[in-house]
Amino acid sequence: MQLTLKNTLDMHIHLREGDILDSVIHFSAKAFSAALAMPNLSSPIINTQMALDYKNRILNAINNSNDHNTQTNTQNNIESIKDSNQNIASNAKSNKYSFTPIMSLYITHNLTKDELIKAKENDIKILKLYPKGSTTGSENGVSEILDKKTLEIFSIAEELGFILSIHGESNGFSMDREFEFGEIFEKIARDFPKLKIIMEHLSDRRSIDLLGKYSNLFATLTLHHITFSLDNVLGSGLNPHYFCKPILKSPKDRDALLELALSANPKASFGSDSAPHLETNKLKVNGSAGIFSAPILLQKLCEIFEKHNKLENLQSFVSDNALNIYDLKDIPNKTITLIKKDSKVPSVVKTNLGDIIPLFAGENLSWDFKY
Amino acid sequence: MQLTLKNTLDMHIHLREGDILDSVIHFSAKAFSAALAMPNLSSPIINTQMALDYKNRILNAINNSNDHNTQTNTQNNIESIKDSNQNIASNAKSNKYSFTPIMSLYITHNLTKDELIKAKENDIKILKLYPKGSTTGSENGVSEILDKKTLEIFSIAEELGFILSIHGESNGFSMDREFEFGEIFEKIARDFPKLKIIMEHLSDRRSIDLLGKYSNLFATLTLHHITFSLDNVLGSGLNPHYFCKPILKSPKDRDALLELALSANPKASFGSDSAPHLETNKLKVNGSAGIFSAPILLQKLCEIFEKHNKLENLQSFVSDNALNIYDLKDIPNKTITLIKKDSKVPSVVKTNLGDIIPLFAGENLSWDFKY
Repeated sequence: MQLTLKNTLDMHIHLREGDILDSVIHFSAKAFSAALAMPNLSSPIINTQMALDYKNRILNAINNSNDHNTQTNTQNNIESIKDSNQNIASNAKSNKYSFTPIMSLYITHNLTKDELIKAKENDIKILKLYPKGSTTGSENGVSEILDKKTLEIFSIAEELGFILSIHGESNGFSMDREFEFGEIFEKIARDFPKLKIIMEHLSDRRSIDLLGKYSNLFATLTLHHITFSLDNVLGSGLNPHYFCKPILKSPKDRDALLELALSANPKASFGSDSAPHLETNKLKVNGSAGIFSAPILLQKLCEIFEKHNKLENLQSFVSDNALNIYDLKDIPNKTITLIKKDSKVPSVVKTNLGDIIPLFAGENLSWDFKY
Repeated sequence: MQLTLKNTLDMHIHLREGDILDSVIHFSAKAFSAALAMPNLSSPIINTQMALDYKNRILNAINNSNDHNTQTNTQNNIESIKDSNQNIASNAKSNKYSFTPIMSLYITHNLTKDELIKAKENDIKILKLYPKGSTTGSENGVSEILDKKTLEIFSIAEELGFILSIHGESNGFSMDREFEFGEIFEKIARDFPKLKIIMEHLSDRRSIDLLGKYSNLFATLTLHHITFSLDNVLGSGLNPHYFCKPILKSPKDRDALLELALSANPKASFGSDSAPHLETNKLKVNGSAGIFSAPILLQKLCEIFEKHNKLENLQSFVSDNALNIYDLKDIPNKTITLIKKDSKVPSVVKTNLGDIIPLFAGENLSWDFKY
């Protein structure tokens, strides 16, 4: 059995910078036609020039990609993963490995109308809003979500046809943060009816109703929120590799979000929120939030959609919905074929800064890329 | 300001064995008149002989106590904590440091009536039930809570006047495990009306109503469940030192449990569930559940009860309620005086096996023991 997907899109990915970018970019470049690169770097991407520069760094990183470092642990030996993708550098501009980084701007109070016009002229049309302190790299976000300056930015964004992407969490109790933010989503959706608003990485089943209530409200779904619950973090021993923001919720939330993904609901597109962190930063006090899922996204989505007899809906979830929501008709065509075949997830992704442990490290997958 | 407490009792403590026991016992021996030693050792305490042997090991450990190893980290220097308790070994049998380990038996299907009679003859009257897999050291617990053999044991326990202490959690979603176990508590309370049943380490406000509903149902409360919520584990970065079972719940649960503790409700007594784990076993994948609170229990309880203007109720919570519930009139009298005075929590407790990080490590306390 095999499945060919056209123009696969990851609408929420942390590609990082420097050595980490070099070590993780090939996973996205191989599997996706395009991906929305999150702007919450150590120096956030707050203007057009920074975004264009970051886009160049991403494209250059594809050439520097050190995917040979990916290792898998079998029979107590560290073996290099057999990966026919070794020629990724030379193929970076061929159809097979063409990859378009979609850029976004991190909203701060310094964002001006002139800057937004400049962004639009440079094909940047997505703004990302982080409530201050809500997640990794949100320290520069706005603290009063609906203050005068932010509302002005929303108004200009609406006028210029931007898409507003929001990490929607309150400062309340972890398990209720997304739900509590719901009223802010509703207010923005009502007050800016022509502004497309994305509720990022939906984690709480109580948010789903909002999609039907407002025509300008959309959502992205991660692989982990449709696959896991809080029990994966702390149901038996504590597993920091499943710790992410928004925190994984209950099995009921997981199941409702999975149903939303499987249903090909045109309001929901795929955004992995894959977030590489060094193992040393995960396994410590004040450990980093984020799940590194980039190496296994499409393979696992095939498994899940096949298991639920919904493989025919995967094209919508992983591409068509986003093409429509974000109006991405300019992405160069690219197809990728997956085949039902056992493969093994690398146990670690090596970087010059240290090890990164991918989701499902060392485990078996029943789908693989067809080369 | 100072407060003298009489016959302080910790009705749920993990004292461990060997090097760990030697390193932690002095905290309990100093602060408490008696403490209920949990029987879930690597070889669980499943009969009278093992319990008596363990009791001797605990008493011997007081003599071997290496409290000198307690260290505090101040101004970037590791300094030995000033601790007038150095003479604990020689004082072990004096009034000041008298300490009575209260023993319990771990329920397995092999527990016979003869064994229970023998236990009673040796002043062991508490049985501890762990649903299989519910927490650290519960691998030997019973898997079907209300199977025929377990009900027979409950029946004998009722007849002989035992107290049944239960780690009440289902195998469901972490945040609902205690609530889901509620119906089992109710069934046991109804079917064995003369059996005193303790709901250990209450964590969910939905359990509190049960206390009023059944005269034979009681509870212990930990310091951490009345002080923290799940947000302390994962509300910002992940903090494995706050990971425990039952998992910390919502701020509403915390506040309701705190109110129960402060109210001197005679159904609720103090049981710290202090659980020392090596730092290396906390900061890893599949990290151990348990909070090591033994070094700061009474000091912190004074702070909390003072803050809420309920210092007059601390004697009930930390002694009188348990004396009545468990009928502990034979414990030798001991008083301990705490004084309002700044003190510092050790940043680490050293053992021959490695470091243990106490709750509030390196932080300031506003109460201390008066020597």
